[in-house]
Amino acid sequence: MKKEVKLSSVAFPAPVYIVGTYNEDGTANAMNAAWGGICASDPPSIMVAVRPARKTFENIMNNKAFTINFPNEALMEVSDYIGLISGKKENKIEKAGLKTAKGEEVNAPILTDYPVSLECSLTDKLEVGSHMLFIGEIKRVLADEEVLDENDRIDVGKVGAIGYDPAGRNYILTNKVVGKAFCAGLGMLKKKED
Amino acid sequence: MKKEVKLSSVAFPAPVYIVGTYNEDGTANAMNAAWGGICASDPPSIMVAVRPARKTFENIMNNKAFTINFPNEALMEVSDYIGLISGKKENKIEKAGLKTAKGEEVNAPILTDYPVSLECSLTDKLEVGSHMLFIGEIKRVLADEEVLDENDRIDVGKVGAIGYDPAGRNYILTNKVVGKAFCAGLGMLKKKED
Repeated sequence: MKKEVKLSSVAFPAPVYIVGTYNEDGTANAMNAAWGGICASDPPSIMVAVRPARKTFENIMNNKAFTINFPNEALMEVSDYIGLISGKKENKIEKAGLKTAKGEEVNAPILTDYPVSLECSLTDKLEVGSHMLFIGEIKRVLADEEVLDENDRIDVGKVGAIGYDPAGRNYILTNKVVGKAFCAGLGMLKKKED
Repeated sequence: MKKEVKLSSVAFPAPVYIVGTYNEDGTANAMNAAWGGICASDPPSIMVAVRPARKTFENIMNNKAFTINFPNEALMEVSDYIGLISGKKENKIEKAGLKTAKGEEVNAPILTDYPVSLECSLTDKLEVGSHMLFIGEIKRVLADEEVLDENDRIDVGKVGAIGYDPAGRNYILTNKVVGKAFCAGLGMLKKKED
């Protein structure tokens, strides 16, 4: 039986994107964003939605660049902290003891403690109600050697990324593989119509 | 040690959105989309990225409406099948034996076998390379009673939604809660600066 529940922004799963940008003075800032997702294959592009009041909003507008860094469970505490206070109020990167490296392709800091990071160059933006959608072309994909398989492909099980549950405001694990895409439904595809 | 890996659209996690739309003749169609995400809190809005060649593209353009339905593991096979063939070639809903109900707020079909569904009204769109980003205002959130907690809130563990791993093309489970957002980092927030 379907029931109508409270209207809100829910999706299962939502991601946890730690967005890296540079402040005007060259220090690094980070934001925890759950509103976003991949938005194109060619060129590889990702969207992250940011409220205008955020420090990250100013920084992306100024630098036309950002990084997306994916936290694992070990980085949950520090990633949540990043979401609890504004970069206008404290130097979160320093307080959290996170290391950064300047992007090679874009003017934004890679959070090198995170297992996978994307360097993104701002290509477009769109205002949607409370948020600005920043569209970034993915220029480089960086991963720790420990999360790669023998073909240098990222192994989702090794990344152990956490996601976000907007309904219950929980962090969730997203590393358990249960099937192969473009494969699980082949039997049904080949089934003759009744 | 960070390593640069093959450039592609990767994110951990990506979702599995089964997008419901009506064809010109009133039959229902469904598409499997992993490029998308929540994009605003007010009004609650979601983005799904669709290639112009898709039947779903035409349908959203015609009806200015779509639903997003979240599959659990039991719906993995049928959801993958939906991603393997175009609605231009076969009636996927019928072949898969899925039930639908017309949205109350929008002209799009709810896939009632799915544990959680969103009724979305098209409010904007943006072309990003290979894909069109369709922005939908979420008008209704529907959930099976079995996935609700005692306060009628959606319980992510009960939903048992699957997500998508673009790097390995896997379906992943996203139902294991590992922490509370806006809480896990409180200790670090209160910690005095060194």
